[in-house]
Amino acid sequence: MLESFIYILDMIGVIVCAISGVLVATRLRMDPFGIAVLAGVTGIGGGTLRDMMMGATPVFWIIDNTYIYVILASAAISVYWLHRIHRFPAYLLPLLDAFGLAIFTIIGAQKALTLGFTGPVAIAMGCITGVAGGMIRDLLSGQIPFVLQKEIYATASILGATLYVICHYFEFGPIFAMTIAMLGTLSLRICAIYWHLSLPVFSDDREA
Amino acid sequence: MLESFIYILDMIGVIVCAISGVLVATRLRMDPFGIAVLAGVTGIGGGTLRDMMMGATPVFWIIDNTYIYVILASAAISVYWLHRIHRFPAYLLPLLDAFGLAIFTIIGAQKALTLGFTGPVAIAMGCITGVAGGMIRDLLSGQIPFVLQKEIYATASILGATLYVICHYFEFGPIFAMTIAMLGTLSLRICAIYWHLSLPVFSDDREA
Amino acid sequence: MLESFIYILDMIGVIVCAISGVLVATRLRMDPFGIAVLAGVTGIGGGTLRDMMMGATPVFWIIDNTYIYVILASAAISVYWLHRIHRFPAYLLPLLDAFGLAIFTIIGAQKALTLGFTGPVAIAMGCITGVAGGMIRDLLSGQIPFVLQKEIYATASILGATLYVICHYFEFGPIFAMTIAMLGTLSLRICAIYWHLSLPVFSDDREA
Repeated sequence: MLESFIYILDMIGVIVCAISGVLVATRLRMDPFGIAVLAGVTGIGGGTLRDMMMGATPVFWIIDNTYIYVILASAAISVYWLHRIHRFPAYLLPLLDAFGLAIFTIIGAQKALTLGFTGPVAIAMGCITGVAGGMIRDLLSGQIPFVLQKEIYATASILGATLYVICHYFEFGPIFAMTIAMLGTLSLRICAIYWHLSLPVFSDDREA
Repeated sequence: MLESFIYILDMIGVIVCAISGVLVATRLRMDPFGIAVLAGVTGIGGGTLRDMMMGATPVFWIIDNTYIYVILASAAISVYWLHRIHRFPAYLLPLLDAFGLAIFTIIGAQKALTLGFTGPVAIAMGCITGVAGGMIRDLLSGQIPFVLQKEIYATASILGATLYVICHYFEFGPIFAMTIAMLGTLSLRICAIYWHLSLPVFSDDREA
Repeated sequence: MLESFIYILDMIGVIVCAISGVLVATRLRMDPFGIAVLAGVTGIGGGTLRDMMMGATPVFWIIDNTYIYVILASAAISVYWLHRIHRFPAYLLPLLDAFGLAIFTIIGAQKALTLGFTGPVAIAMGCITGVAGGMIRDLLSGQIPFVLQKEIYATASILGATLYVICHYFEFGPIFAMTIAMLGTLSLRICAIYWHLSLPVFSDDREA
């Protein structure tokens, strides 16, 4: 039951991230292959990097090909959908990203803890799973990853991963831990979007 | 015999991709090390990423150092050659890329099938081996990977890998399968270059 | 004793590279997370790529979490320090890079030789450990990696790694080999900074 719950969550994360990749690709007027690559990179790039770093190879989508089909289907459906509706709401991309971030963060942290790694590694892996896909998407689109700039994005991922690790440490049930962690990430991220919150920016020429 | 055939093909792929890396590096006025890095990344970057994802580590060129020597020799010879001839034909880069793409696609698909992975994974690995090296080369050169934009490039790789997987499924001989797959990739790619074919571009502001 | 010596060296390399990442991140006005990512990528990115290629997974910092703490502490202290002093000497970044390069080069070459790989692989791994972190930092900052451009940087890394492999081949003591190799890298790099030495640049439009 728990495995199915995690699996469904993971698929939802892959779908929303794939859609966010499609949105970026269509803005850049990429061709269908470019769209599929950005969808794939955003959907499974973070988890692929996580698995390669942890030595959990072959990486997850090589073992379970469902991820490939889900990405291709999500990309195809969202391209069709973009053609039908003529305008695309501007707030959709950050919202999709927020959901994907919350889901991938706990999936990454949970996988690291399952493999027996320490809490700090689980937080790092949650964060890498959550943000690396979007970072590679931005790099391939010729942009400085927006995660690194001033919106509270990765900070929300770190909060969620930390909550998850704390819940795991105190041996709360996994469903409870996941819910708390996802709510933590989502609420911080959505507040940041809504009120345009940012972390302070440090600059060495600030005093000039 | 078959192994030798694949090995020689692979080396030809490494050489043509290394030369394409040198061409990009010299255009950007890089130093000898930059040239060697772009030659190496284009020549063995895709296969390195493929091996890391499949867990086939240490990656192939760590086990067989011939790849390192071939890349360094190709880079040195093509730099010397660029110095001797004063003008470089503009169509050479896309042609080299097309050959490298066709070869690396079947090498990647073949390696994935040999390791016992499924058809969709073999197609993905063929495509990654074929296009990832050039994508990293473009990233390191400060460009959006041209694969993602509108020329039929990766589509040719997917066609070739799919043909190879189909031939493998129907248990045709490997030489026959490779020839068919390479011809598929090469002919689609060269037609695309010659007639400036492109896949349709999807854009969400198309109707504005 | 030797292990402790290498470990302390490695930590110094991580600290100086993390600081160089912080310097780049603050120039780009990144937020605290962006600063931590650039510090981490510069500090442990090269070694992470090296370990993934060699199949030495889970990568080193997942096994020994000290690296995570050292990077976070270095980043926090250097951000605080940047706030206190109003101007930052311009020569510091290249000097830090030179030390990090010299240290990481021998660490990478030494790890490859310890795992039983050949001399050319050890040179490649020394060079990847030395330069890849800075290259990923530059990519994430939206710049063409400066390693690829005309300063003698990676060349110094290759010199150091080659010296180390030669010393290892002639069975000199490891401390002696490391000292020679580090001095080789450092002196070539610092001379290049001081006299603005560059390798010749090859360009295919040079004759135009």
